[in-house]
Amino acid sequence: MTRSNKRSRVTVDIYNHRYTIRGNEDANHVRLVASYVDQKMREIHAANEFLDTRELAVLTAVNTMNDYLKLKEENEQLKQKLKEEK
Amino acid sequence: MTRSNKRSRVTVDIYNHRYTIRGNEDANHVRLVASYVDQKMREIHAANEFLDTRELAVLTAVNTMNDYLKLKEENEQLKQKLKEEK
Repeated sequence: MTRSNKRSRVTVDIYNHRYTIRGNEDANHVRLVASYVDQKMREIHAANEFLDTRELAVLTAVNTMNDYLKLKEENEQLKQKLKEEK
Repeated sequence: MTRSNKRSRVTVDIYNHRYTIRGNEDANHVRLVASYVDQKMREIHAANEFLDTRELAVLTAVNTMNDYLKLKEENEQLKQKLKEEK
């Protein structure tokens, strides 16, 4: 969301730090996304108390990327199924 | 990937730092996921040179979460379509 041409700006708090998110997304959507990231960082912190914020953020990105790739694979299978049923 | 019961460990480098990823994923898959996160952090850095590693990691998580949520919506639509075609 940081590389869009439409330069709307939304300020959000994630894990006790403030970030300005630029992009063309609706402000409420940006806040929702930020709240999910915040929540995931807190979950990972609860299971790994000695990680600092950078480490938590990277592991959150890794977890989310993993979820994304799995969903992408499922998505391709669904598209394939739809094709076959036509 | 950090909260699994099967405690396999994979060490990866992401944006010049080393992380140990625990989970039940295949080591090659973990390395692939880590390389995507590393790549995304570098892309965001290229567009925002003054961000530190924590900020880059959080913005990477936010971007990936946004992509994930969009894909999830598409996924639900595909499932709905498949249901309707049956």
